[in-house]
Amino acid sequence: MIRFDSDYLEGAHPKVLKKIVESNYEQTMGYGKDKYCDSAKEKIKKALKRDDVDIHFMVGGTQTNMTVISSALKSHEAVICANTAHIFVNETGAIESYGNRIITISNEEGKISSNSIEYLVLSHENSFLPEFSPKPKLVYITIPTECGTSYTKGEIEDIYNVCKKYNMYLYIDGARMAYGVDVKDSDISFCDIPNMCDAFYIGGTKCGALFGEAVVLVNEELKKDFRYHIKQHGALLAKGRLLGMQFDTLFTKDLYFRLGKQANEFALKIKNAAVEKGYPLLYNSFTNQQFIIFPNDKLEELEKKFTFWHWEKLSKDHTAVRICTSWATTEENVEKLINSL
Amino acid sequence: MIRFDSDYLEGAHPKVLKKIVESNYEQTMGYGKDKYCDSAKEKIKKALKRDDVDIHFMVGGTQTNMTVISSALKSHEAVICANTAHIFVNETGAIESYGNRIITISNEEGKISSNSIEYLVLSHENSFLPEFSPKPKLVYITIPTECGTSYTKGEIEDIYNVCKKYNMYLYIDGARMAYGVDVKDSDISFCDIPNMCDAFYIGGTKCGALFGEAVVLVNEELKKDFRYHIKQHGALLAKGRLLGMQFDTLFTKDLYFRLGKQANEFALKIKNAAVEKGYPLLYNSFTNQQFIIFPNDKLEELEKKFTFWHWEKLSKDHTAVRICTSWATTEENVEKLINSL
Amino acid sequence: MIRFDSDYLEGAHPKVLKKIVESNYEQTMGYGKDKYCDSAKEKIKKALKRDDVDIHFMVGGTQTNMTVISSALKSHEAVICANTAHIFVNETGAIESYGNRIITISNEEGKISSNSIEYLVLSHENSFLPEFSPKPKLVYITIPTECGTSYTKGEIEDIYNVCKKYNMYLYIDGARMAYGVDVKDSDISFCDIPNMCDAFYIGGTKCGALFGEAVVLVNEELKKDFRYHIKQHGALLAKGRLLGMQFDTLFTKDLYFRLGKQANEFALKIKNAAVEKGYPLLYNSFTNQQFIIFPNDKLEELEKKFTFWHWEKLSKDHTAVRICTSWATTEENVEKLINSL
Amino acid sequence: MIRFDSDYLEGAHPKVLKKIVESNYEQTMGYGKDKYCDSAKEKIKKALKRDDVDIHFMVGGTQTNMTVISSALKSHEAVICANTAHIFVNETGAIESYGNRIITISNEEGKISSNSIEYLVLSHENSFLPEFSPKPKLVYITIPTECGTSYTKGEIEDIYNVCKKYNMYLYIDGARMAYGVDVKDSDISFCDIPNMCDAFYIGGTKCGALFGEAVVLVNEELKKDFRYHIKQHGALLAKGRLLGMQFDTLFTKDLYFRLGKQANEFALKIKNAAVEKGYPLLYNSFTNQQFIIFPNDKLEELEKKFTFWHWEKLSKDHTAVRICTSWATTEENVEKLINSL
Repeated sequence: MIRFDSDYLEGAHPKVLKKIVESNYEQTMGYGKDKYCDSAKEKIKKALKRDDVDIHFMVGGTQTNMTVISSALKSHEAVICANTAHIFVNETGAIESYGNRIITISNEEGKISSNSIEYLVLSHENSFLPEFSPKPKLVYITIPTECGTSYTKGEIEDIYNVCKKYNMYLYIDGARMAYGVDVKDSDISFCDIPNMCDAFYIGGTKCGALFGEAVVLVNEELKKDFRYHIKQHGALLAKGRLLGMQFDTLFTKDLYFRLGKQANEFALKIKNAAVEKGYPLLYNSFTNQQFIIFPNDKLEELEKKFTFWHWEKLSKDHTAVRICTSWATTEENVEKLINSL
Repeated sequence: MIRFDSDYLEGAHPKVLKKIVESNYEQTMGYGKDKYCDSAKEKIKKALKRDDVDIHFMVGGTQTNMTVISSALKSHEAVICANTAHIFVNETGAIESYGNRIITISNEEGKISSNSIEYLVLSHENSFLPEFSPKPKLVYITIPTECGTSYTKGEIEDIYNVCKKYNMYLYIDGARMAYGVDVKDSDISFCDIPNMCDAFYIGGTKCGALFGEAVVLVNEELKKDFRYHIKQHGALLAKGRLLGMQFDTLFTKDLYFRLGKQANEFALKIKNAAVEKGYPLLYNSFTNQQFIIFPNDKLEELEKKFTFWHWEKLSKDHTAVRICTSWATTEENVEKLINSL
Repeated sequence: MIRFDSDYLEGAHPKVLKKIVESNYEQTMGYGKDKYCDSAKEKIKKALKRDDVDIHFMVGGTQTNMTVISSALKSHEAVICANTAHIFVNETGAIESYGNRIITISNEEGKISSNSIEYLVLSHENSFLPEFSPKPKLVYITIPTECGTSYTKGEIEDIYNVCKKYNMYLYIDGARMAYGVDVKDSDISFCDIPNMCDAFYIGGTKCGALFGEAVVLVNEELKKDFRYHIKQHGALLAKGRLLGMQFDTLFTKDLYFRLGKQANEFALKIKNAAVEKGYPLLYNSFTNQQFIIFPNDKLEELEKKFTFWHWEKLSKDHTAVRICTSWATTEENVEKLINSL
Repeated sequence: MIRFDSDYLEGAHPKVLKKIVESNYEQTMGYGKDKYCDSAKEKIKKALKRDDVDIHFMVGGTQTNMTVISSALKSHEAVICANTAHIFVNETGAIESYGNRIITISNEEGKISSNSIEYLVLSHENSFLPEFSPKPKLVYITIPTECGTSYTKGEIEDIYNVCKKYNMYLYIDGARMAYGVDVKDSDISFCDIPNMCDAFYIGGTKCGALFGEAVVLVNEELKKDFRYHIKQHGALLAKGRLLGMQFDTLFTKDLYFRLGKQANEFALKIKNAAVEKGYPLLYNSFTNQQFIIFPNDKLEELEKKFTFWHWEKLSKDHTAVRICTSWATTEENVEKLINSL
């Protein structure tokens, strides 16, 4: 079986593993206070062209989202996001478990607009008793979105401006960041990101690491006491160097971005082949996740050799599936899939 | 100015006040352990024809909802309700502040259906990784609804059956219970209620008391340690006898229900007059809250003498307002309003 | 039976009740947005000689403490207090239920010292990994203490200075404030209080009201969005005017302080009589709570006519009891008790 | 510098690493639903001689403790533990952040007694208003303790009996389990553990793994919906197989216990040498953590070559340090340390 159902099916890029193996007997202080974490932070700052951000490493995405968001908010404050957002759909109410409401707004292919955000905030502010509902305080978006689509730089700048106008934070989930910068339908470069949000994270788990996410805190207010929040949320890895080594490797010679670029190319090959064969797309993605609609009998046939994520039953005859490529996807397997379409 | 904007504009029914004044110098143990609370509980049990329920008194509605719901749930469990529900719209995320997600489903005039609930639960159960989203565990409905409308006995029984089928609780918010039983479009009697839910509360604040709500716990699981939850939620009134006296008075000679009936009659007079004059209704309510659509110029004219709650701007020319009657509404004021319509 | 076990055994001072009864049919906007609340706030500000504080009314003490404290803190921040503190001993973990740890420190007759606070904070700051334990952020004290004792002005100023030095809040629980200012062993006047803390509350429930507490927010940081917190904690009384009327009455012609003074005088009469008879005191209180140690057989005899709160079994033969006077205590009953000692 | 300050200074036992490297390109389903997790669970069950327990893998200790404990408790329920307990001292209030109070009781060298627990529970139950303080519901102990000491089988059985008598859970933190079974001062075997508690975890991070802890749920009540809690607490590792592989390796041919045994032997060598040289011990530990009291000048000398954890300043001249051995400690380094003592 050749699996295309997600981008965390394999271990890690061999260079990442190599670093972990080589240093195995070295003794280092725990909790992220080691030279590997320091080095990784320096490299990320250099790639971001920002020396004034704080960087912290955590293990997984849900953990990262709940730590950043709950540390930023008081209990009467709410998060605004798309109803497709990972924090809303896939994290078992972790945000609410720390006391905050999530307010979802409509989206187009996973993207929300500055207008919808402003409309929501104004409705709240202008209500007769605004204190009767949670106060919008943080906007959550994803680069790229859960639908594989991308915001343009202008779109995110508009959102960030609305956030600043109404004294809200903009937080960007970058679980698949490697696949989301410098892509065809977006003009966002990696180093743009700290200039257009208050905090974001750079995903490792789905982009070449065994596991790990790097949080980048831009806004001073969010930096304070952040290690308390990491520790309290059970997110401070004892052998923090494992995270440092992984990000140090991924941010050496642009490995992170090269892995993303390659996976995107494979994904577009599959997309183009599917379109050529006449299969409609659920979303028009230019990143490593493709959403293709198959007749069920065709799908059944494909699933004798390949696995996909069943995204949505669209009718009794048609199903949209997610097809993921990753750093580990091989040209050979891509060809096999294309030939079977 | 004659106010019709809500049903908690005045103090309390004079009999309620009288009891408080008369007993002022009596010394009683605090925290609900007094003879007035005992007597009130007995009278409520008698009216419910159920001796096996637990009754507790609290001060207000939000407090009551958050105490009952958070005591019933663990943090991974969710509440299902209409998107018009008081806990969703008017309680500042109190449910989420204790860790639980609220999942809203569509409603018709404030009412949700057993089918929508079952559909939601099945979607959850049948999802590929159900543990990735909060588990539906409690259904919240209101008698009467926030739109003034009423469930029939059969409708609630259907909802309760779905709850039992999927091991969920049914909790009924009865903030306006006095106005919601034995009304024209519903066949529900007060004593039916404990037979078709796991817990509910009998509202005092909006129905003749200065303040106070009586929680009725039917399901054994919910009874355990409930006083811990009341105290922890800051909801245990030191001079608990004030609550006992009020409910004791309201449940003497059916005062509670007589007040509700009278207010409903006044409300229907207003509704009928409005319909006769050709004003459309937003919802078809038979209880003390009426939702009438006025042209803005007519509304402006009326608001020189009367106050209403602006419910919804329907267009640039029309506004729906809520008109409330209560135990304190006088026939004279009702006539004045009708004559001005 | 003549009860001396607590100071919330009766209803309210007759002037308070009268105001509620007189205004019963008046229609006012809910949620504290009425003229009675406005007037009460003005009178309290005048008594405090501070126009720049924010005042909010709530129903009870636990509710008030949990709302103020949880609104002030993030989840990694902790409260410092005596291990006799009401929030630690008598509120069912309400503070923890909102996510914050309580750190208790040793006390003398209910009083903590600026030195112990500073020692604790320094131990935390100087630990190898301070982020491994909650960060002290708010100090909670009581005027007068749960042991009836009083801080001097200098003692509280010292505590407040430590708080400011380490960027912490000082919050004062004034459940029995009426009995705690201008007492024999303390030089604190009511109008001193806002000058030596960040927030405090003025207790009504135990000092002449049916119920109610007035929160005074001094520090700007604590004022923001406070009504959201009140509402979210179920602490926003629908008929808020009931609170306004009570505090308006209590702060008219110093009624609040006159009630406190009288109760203190009665308490000291009892204390002096007890000392004269040779009964030892558990704490040396000059306020309305007295803590007297009786041989068990004497206690048994007294308890045929009077009730006390059993505070602590000191040996198999001796028990310390709390004897409370209040606004409602009569000279006649005090004499009866003294004659029976 | 040769480090002895903790047992998580190196990577992982080479066999563990080898497994991860070998399987790197294999594709598996995420979230613990892979064959490695299945196999590891089977091996652990076999070692425990219990087929009816549920096993789940998480990443770190704080995460594990907060997930197990918060999933077991409602917000009014409290945890009982030693004031040296890891959850109290080293986890930034994670337990409180989910709403529960920790009640500490006195301990001897890190051990609490069934008597102290029962005394606490009875004090609570017999108080006048038990609902005014959190209800003890879970006892937390550690094998071995944070002081390196060990409970005997009889001591834990006594504690477990008290728990069952008062309807409480017993949860055992086994962060250093490998070093805590079959040690000189304890008669506990690994397979005894599920028979004397409701839940426990088997620590990987400090015992040969890169990271990872295996939770064993014995009590049926705790098994329900546990994966929801893991996911909600951000504790469900995407590439769960990494945890499966590590525990599978550690539980093959008793590697886990062999590593523990060796580290204990090295620790005892150091201890005996220290005692021989006349250095007093802070605690009498037979496990991999040793607590030795040095004169400060001697310590300074040692710290030119070795690192220790400064545990407690005992006087101005003496300091107690923690010396840890682990799976990675070499005989050579142990000899070097002994020769320098």
